[in-house]
Amino acid sequence: MSTSRLIYLPLGGAGEIGMNAYVYGYGPEGRERLILVDLGVTFPDMDTTPGVDLILPDITWLAENADRLEAIFITHGHEDHVGALGHLWSRLKAPVFARPFTAALARMKLDEAGHDGSDIVEEVNPRPEVIEAGPFNVQYVPVSHSIPESSALVIDTPAGRIVHTGDFKLDGNPVVGEPFDPLAWNEIAQEAGGVRILVCDSTNIFSPTPGRSEATLAGPLKEFIAGASGMVVATTFASNVARLKSLAEAGHAAGRSVCMMGRAMKKMLNAAFESGVLTQFPPIITPEDAAHVARDNLMLIVTGSQGERRAASAQLSRGRYLGLEMKEGDTFLFSSKTIPGNERDVIRIMNAFSEMGVEVVDDRGGLYHVSGHANRPDLEAVHELLAPKILIPMHGEHRHLRQHARVAAAKGIVSEVATNGSMLDLSGPRPEVVEYIETGRTYLDGTVLVGALDGVVRNRLRMAMGGHVLVTAILDENDQPLGEAWVELMGLAERGRTGADLAELIESELTEFLDRANDKVLASDEKLDDSIRRIVRQVTMEEIGKKPEVTVVVSRLMAD
Amino acid sequence: MSTSRLIYLPLGGAGEIGMNAYVYGYGPEGRERLILVDLGVTFPDMDTTPGVDLILPDITWLAENADRLEAIFITHGHEDHVGALGHLWSRLKAPVFARPFTAALARMKLDEAGHDGSDIVEEVNPRPEVIEAGPFNVQYVPVSHSIPESSALVIDTPAGRIVHTGDFKLDGNPVVGEPFDPLAWNEIAQEAGGVRILVCDSTNIFSPTPGRSEATLAGPLKEFIAGASGMVVATTFASNVARLKSLAEAGHAAGRSVCMMGRAMKKMLNAAFESGVLTQFPPIITPEDAAHVARDNLMLIVTGSQGERRAASAQLSRGRYLGLEMKEGDTFLFSSKTIPGNERDVIRIMNAFSEMGVEVVDDRGGLYHVSGHANRPDLEAVHELLAPKILIPMHGEHRHLRQHARVAAAKGIVSEVATNGSMLDLSGPRPEVVEYIETGRTYLDGTVLVGALDGVVRNRLRMAMGGHVLVTAILDENDQPLGEAWVELMGLAERGRTGADLAELIESELTEFLDRANDKVLASDEKLDDSIRRIVRQVTMEEIGKKPEVTVVVSRLMAD
Repeated sequence: MSTSRLIYLPLGGAGEIGMNAYVYGYGPEGRERLILVDLGVTFPDMDTTPGVDLILPDITWLAENADRLEAIFITHGHEDHVGALGHLWSRLKAPVFARPFTAALARMKLDEAGHDGSDIVEEVNPRPEVIEAGPFNVQYVPVSHSIPESSALVIDTPAGRIVHTGDFKLDGNPVVGEPFDPLAWNEIAQEAGGVRILVCDSTNIFSPTPGRSEATLAGPLKEFIAGASGMVVATTFASNVARLKSLAEAGHAAGRSVCMMGRAMKKMLNAAFESGVLTQFPPIITPEDAAHVARDNLMLIVTGSQGERRAASAQLSRGRYLGLEMKEGDTFLFSSKTIPGNERDVIRIMNAFSEMGVEVVDDRGGLYHVSGHANRPDLEAVHELLAPKILIPMHGEHRHLRQHARVAAAKGIVSEVATNGSMLDLSGPRPEVVEYIETGRTYLDGTVLVGALDGVVRNRLRMAMGGHVLVTAILDENDQPLGEAWVELMGLAERGRTGADLAELIESELTEFLDRANDKVLASDEKLDDSIRRIVRQVTMEEIGKKPEVTVVVSRLMAD
Repeated sequence: MSTSRLIYLPLGGAGEIGMNAYVYGYGPEGRERLILVDLGVTFPDMDTTPGVDLILPDITWLAENADRLEAIFITHGHEDHVGALGHLWSRLKAPVFARPFTAALARMKLDEAGHDGSDIVEEVNPRPEVIEAGPFNVQYVPVSHSIPESSALVIDTPAGRIVHTGDFKLDGNPVVGEPFDPLAWNEIAQEAGGVRILVCDSTNIFSPTPGRSEATLAGPLKEFIAGASGMVVATTFASNVARLKSLAEAGHAAGRSVCMMGRAMKKMLNAAFESGVLTQFPPIITPEDAAHVARDNLMLIVTGSQGERRAASAQLSRGRYLGLEMKEGDTFLFSSKTIPGNERDVIRIMNAFSEMGVEVVDDRGGLYHVSGHANRPDLEAVHELLAPKILIPMHGEHRHLRQHARVAAAKGIVSEVATNGSMLDLSGPRPEVVEYIETGRTYLDGTVLVGALDGVVRNRLRMAMGGHVLVTAILDENDQPLGEAWVELMGLAERGRTGADLAELIESELTEFLDRANDKVLASDEKLDDSIRRIVRQVTMEEIGKKPEVTVVVSRLMAD
């Protein structure tokens, strides 16, 4: 029997921000017992994934080894950590562990996908509670982040202790949830022979100054809202329950009635109340009641801080929403930062409000927003506190992972950049890449899962760039053209260089071609298709300077 | 005869950053003689304009009044000020004025479009030279910006003096070109009864600190490049000739051979040399020669600071380009800022370099890049220097224009936000909106100009979001179905909920429908089209949760 080894395999999140999914395994090579930490999504964009609803990790490898999977541990309730659970669980069928608030969200994901969430998700308490999962003993350690109940995991294995941080920051006063507890972390570093491996959040490695506490926002927010004119509308991430509380308290303190708008926000608040993470919150009123409150006495807290087109912020920027609308002299606050790639959508909303005469205020360099991730000095503090032998940077683009590895290496900690699909053997003093697993992305497209390389989205991009030309031609039972070729254009200019109708020009070229084509060509679908495609592209290139996608349908009538 | 009036009509640039085009007119209502200042483009994006090559202002109104157009004045050579000239000049046919470097670029634009640029573009010298254009006397005033020979225009009219700033900053030492000259500006404010109307760049109104000089970069750049390892590659905007010079001098001072890569860069450098704005520049070597220089002694200055996929930066991030490639230990510098909307493309390149082990450095908060636009304090200084009666904020999104107007109003200057299409009467003490002109955007799509509202791009977006289903059906001379309906999918998953082939499922539903359809339906193209479309969308919705675009081709065989 071969010796056992400890492996680490990121399936998402390592080489990108979002879509977190990390596998750990222990046992003889190829027979390791496995656990999965997080199963998140990332979001599509028009540049690369038009029409796609969600992007999920490709878990083919894990699904093929599902019989070896002991459990799934969710660190916190953000979409990029739990969003894929509903869509992919049926291929894994392992028990899911999470703390109560996160468990509530995880159950909703499973329920929406037609599973029975309450049957699958088990609630856990923070350490000292230990979950045994095959060779792994797992404990949840409360950390601060931008959603309640975020947790790091202490994973004890026969090959030593691992700390998997999840997303975290150091916050001594996080408004909602447990403050950063250096004593508890010190204990973790001292027990069990110390921390051998730290797998650590890298998102903010490029931020050079220490992170700031959520609590620092309360004063500036109160002052701002007390001094704001008209109706005040504030947006932030719906899951940032501490921020919702800070905003609502600031509004309440300013004598304003507070109304929450947007489905995601209600869902989060309900989960927070029901799981007990939120006990105190200012009174809130419904949008129906809000419509009867004087503007100067009203504050809305709304979804859509990233400019999402269907969220409340965007709706309000287009006009009336749930009976309320922005007017000249009102105030709109982005208590958020814009995630790279969302700038255009956010700016569109800002300008729409500007046209209405609404005062738009953004985070003002941190006055009204703080990040949920540990900055470089905070990460370094954690490196020192936990004193790991090995650091594996996790959750970040390649440049973040690389920088994090260098920061660790500069302090004498062995470090290795492992991106999605790189299986590391962590048994020895240095991590070793032992295998590359096929990974990638799976698209949720409508209600279907589509592989990123299946060509479906590629064809959409091609039609978006070049338009689409459809050609139909009918041949009779003797393979002779019947009538003329018919051309339809979609997404192409109707006329170009010569001023003639483009579809008609193509039709006449095709008709001429069909009239002259010899029997061998006419008898071959492939030859016809090739020739027709070539002619279409030639004419469109000459006329309008574009090479469109072409679909050719040749119908052959059968002899009766 | 009616009294004369002075009008201002932005056709682009007012309500957006980019696509500048401003009309001034003087004369009796509806018979004003006109001049046009700038004729620029803006750039497409996948979110709104997939496949489009360039976005131009809709100049329908101006083209209809081209007989009244005296001249076109170009303030500087950036694409968003001169880029539409070649594509739209034939509809205006007025003489074009510009200073020599800008004139060289303008001529190229016209030549590329098949006109004779040297016949159309007249070179002008800075004031005191005056160009008479109908009722307008126009003088060029050198200003600093991020391209040589940028100019403000002093436009004297019977209704008083206008200063149109173009894009500008206040730079006492701009490295290339003339420094900011407060005495000259003071003179402009004193002459001709003073400045009645200031039409002023608004791009950086939200930047609260005074702008910094281009010359401040030389020291940090020299220090950085002298200390950099491996091959050093720097990117910036090709048209920023001063920056190219600062970068090349820093490389040269560090003992490196300097090589310029990218077509746009060569074009700009040539125009700068030929027009005489650039006289001194370190020696440069060709890419062929660069391939033989030791990496530590080599510096490349390359195009593609915005992550453009075909530019040199992106090419190098993908591998070998013109015989050169980046390697571990090399250094890549973004001497630029990322324009909002380009973040994803820039980050993609940063990560590709990170994977190669290349050191990537960005502007480091202004150490290696300064803006070409006047910040708020600089704008306020110009307001004070010129002491206009009226300020019209120009070149900015709505939020920029609004903020600029408020800054002016706070100092007692009458101000009015006028966005594209708003015609202002500037004859009186307060600007009055007298008319709204239909404006908008024209797309250069391949080689054709397409109206933004023509539906061409809308159809591409629909196909990109929903995919495209093509249905062909053949009816015989008695309107009876001949064979079965044929379905082709493009950009859609092949199978969904039931696991069956989606195209076949649709075909069988359609065949069933055709078999049952009554004669009235079968005889009507419209009824058939409606029904087929509905069935296709119903099946795709059920199977894969999407509503695709549908094109139906019904072929009817004629009786012989």
